[in-house]
Amino acid sequence: MKIGILGYGNLGRGVESAVRQNDDMELTAILTRRDPESIKPATDGVKVYSVDDAEKLKDEIDVLVICGGSATDLPKQTPEYAKLFNVIDSFDTHARIPEHFANVDKAAKESGHTALISCGWDPGMFSVMRLYGSAVLPEGEDYTFWGKGVSQGHSDAIRRVKGVKNGKQYTIPVQEALDKVRAGENPTLTTRQKHVRECFVVPEDGADLAQIEKDIKTMPNYFDEYDTTIHFITEEELERDHSGIPHGGFVFRTGVTGLNKENKHVIEYSLKLDSNPEFTSSVILAYARALNRLAKEGQTGCKSVFDIAPAYLSPLSAEELRAHML
Amino acid sequence: MKIGILGYGNLGRGVESAVRQNDDMELTAILTRRDPESIKPATDGVKVYSVDDAEKLKDEIDVLVICGGSATDLPKQTPEYAKLFNVIDSFDTHARIPEHFANVDKAAKESGHTALISCGWDPGMFSVMRLYGSAVLPEGEDYTFWGKGVSQGHSDAIRRVKGVKNGKQYTIPVQEALDKVRAGENPTLTTRQKHVRECFVVPEDGADLAQIEKDIKTMPNYFDEYDTTIHFITEEELERDHSGIPHGGFVFRTGVTGLNKENKHVIEYSLKLDSNPEFTSSVILAYARALNRLAKEGQTGCKSVFDIAPAYLSPLSAEELRAHML
Repeated sequence: MKIGILGYGNLGRGVESAVRQNDDMELTAILTRRDPESIKPATDGVKVYSVDDAEKLKDEIDVLVICGGSATDLPKQTPEYAKLFNVIDSFDTHARIPEHFANVDKAAKESGHTALISCGWDPGMFSVMRLYGSAVLPEGEDYTFWGKGVSQGHSDAIRRVKGVKNGKQYTIPVQEALDKVRAGENPTLTTRQKHVRECFVVPEDGADLAQIEKDIKTMPNYFDEYDTTIHFITEEELERDHSGIPHGGFVFRTGVTGLNKENKHVIEYSLKLDSNPEFTSSVILAYARALNRLAKEGQTGCKSVFDIAPAYLSPLSAEELRAHML
Repeated sequence: MKIGILGYGNLGRGVESAVRQNDDMELTAILTRRDPESIKPATDGVKVYSVDDAEKLKDEIDVLVICGGSATDLPKQTPEYAKLFNVIDSFDTHARIPEHFANVDKAAKESGHTALISCGWDPGMFSVMRLYGSAVLPEGEDYTFWGKGVSQGHSDAIRRVKGVKNGKQYTIPVQEALDKVRAGENPTLTTRQKHVRECFVVPEDGADLAQIEKDIKTMPNYFDEYDTTIHFITEEELERDHSGIPHGGFVFRTGVTGLNKENKHVIEYSLKLDSNPEFTSSVILAYARALNRLAKEGQTGCKSVFDIAPAYLSPLSAEELRAHML
């Protein structure tokens, strides 16, 4: 199947790399809003086009992976390109998913394409785990923890603080909270009890460190509800020790069964990821395979990970899967 | 939806109990090969029928849960009752799944019913996790560990040893192996390195304990490839400390991404279950819901957990799922 990439940032490069790990896929085109000449793909022979030429590529791409940001890019791009291609995105603004779904569904149905939004690990694999957990243990509690990992949004917020030259923020689950959930204690946890935030900050020369610390720790929404630790480091240290984009997290479902609800059960799903964008890309390509199959079956409109049977994700046949994985 | 149960053992009672936790389900009939008078359901008003009366119940049951054993019951029962009902079973002889699938598929297609085999947690949820893992990390390794939990087959094997009055066997993953897998080391593990076996044995009066210990530890297939610990205890201690049926386990997928495969990822799914049959029953009912929906869509034939989109398992609507769980 022929994969196209729209947007060549961290996620786009992750998709390019992941295509090489899937024998049934090839990367046929990268589309960009920048000057195509400015982009040098890591893969020999892959052509780079301006988004203005998208229509010419209609028959060259089975699934277009849209690698824009959720704030402003995807709400416009995914419905727009669903007019020309089967499209998949990683839209992750949870509160706006219903609206985004409706827009993409309308565009895809009108043009006779299929689409899948909000793919990756959260939303994505974590969503699937929340659904399986609640379906198989109807009386129970859900817990999602994120980290240890780099939060792009919180890192951006740090960098906007006066006197800050550069910085990176890690979200870290509180071990005591994990232990309580894992023990089936069904704790009620406040925001502060679930995660801590650790910041590595490069100050500008002569900056007021105490003021920076105060400004970060009291920042509404981002930090004020958390216990935050701040480390001041040099640009060299930031580059050396914090240039990766690791992430991960945990989804728990804890519940009871039995005539007297006497038996407890704990389901735990966790991810430890060296590269958030590369893992997200890998999940996206598995769902792109599913999407291509749905398109060939004649299905149209927008889907989510909830609508995709697991078998559609694998290159193996149904017989092979039953014989070797069931 | 109307649930029927065929076979009122541990699994059948688990299904009965789980029906009470699903508001959209009711238990309408228990079918048994024994004298129906000998069975007293825990639920008021539920009628017990002889299997000979199955045909009369054709229109009273949306999905029949077949709660027999995999060795001899299910290979006969599931195809047989697929002629009359939509059926679901927990067939767990991995090597014979393709043959069982073919038999059930044929019967269900001929009669216009739907069926789902090999449902529970392994095969079942663990199978789904193996499939998701291999699809999203195509270059990687799979690991499945079982326990800590009671193995019925190994407990039966102990009880057949000369001089043994009663006994129970726990399968336990080796912590060092779990740690290595979790650290992304991709170890190659022998049978002995993955699990240990712990036996609690009630000897007959005057039995030769050394001989019992030797007979168990050298038993081919069951124990000879494992490090086995044996504790001799009294019948009272067995009853007091080992009457539960806990189980669980771990499914890992570890893999790499990146242009130079430089980034590692670890996916871990684990279950800690106080009651193996009750959790299995809970999974079965979620898939029974899916099966009933497929039947209403007019689908026929045999399915596996691989063929069921997650959304089919939940009582919530697609809109609710997208708004609250994605």
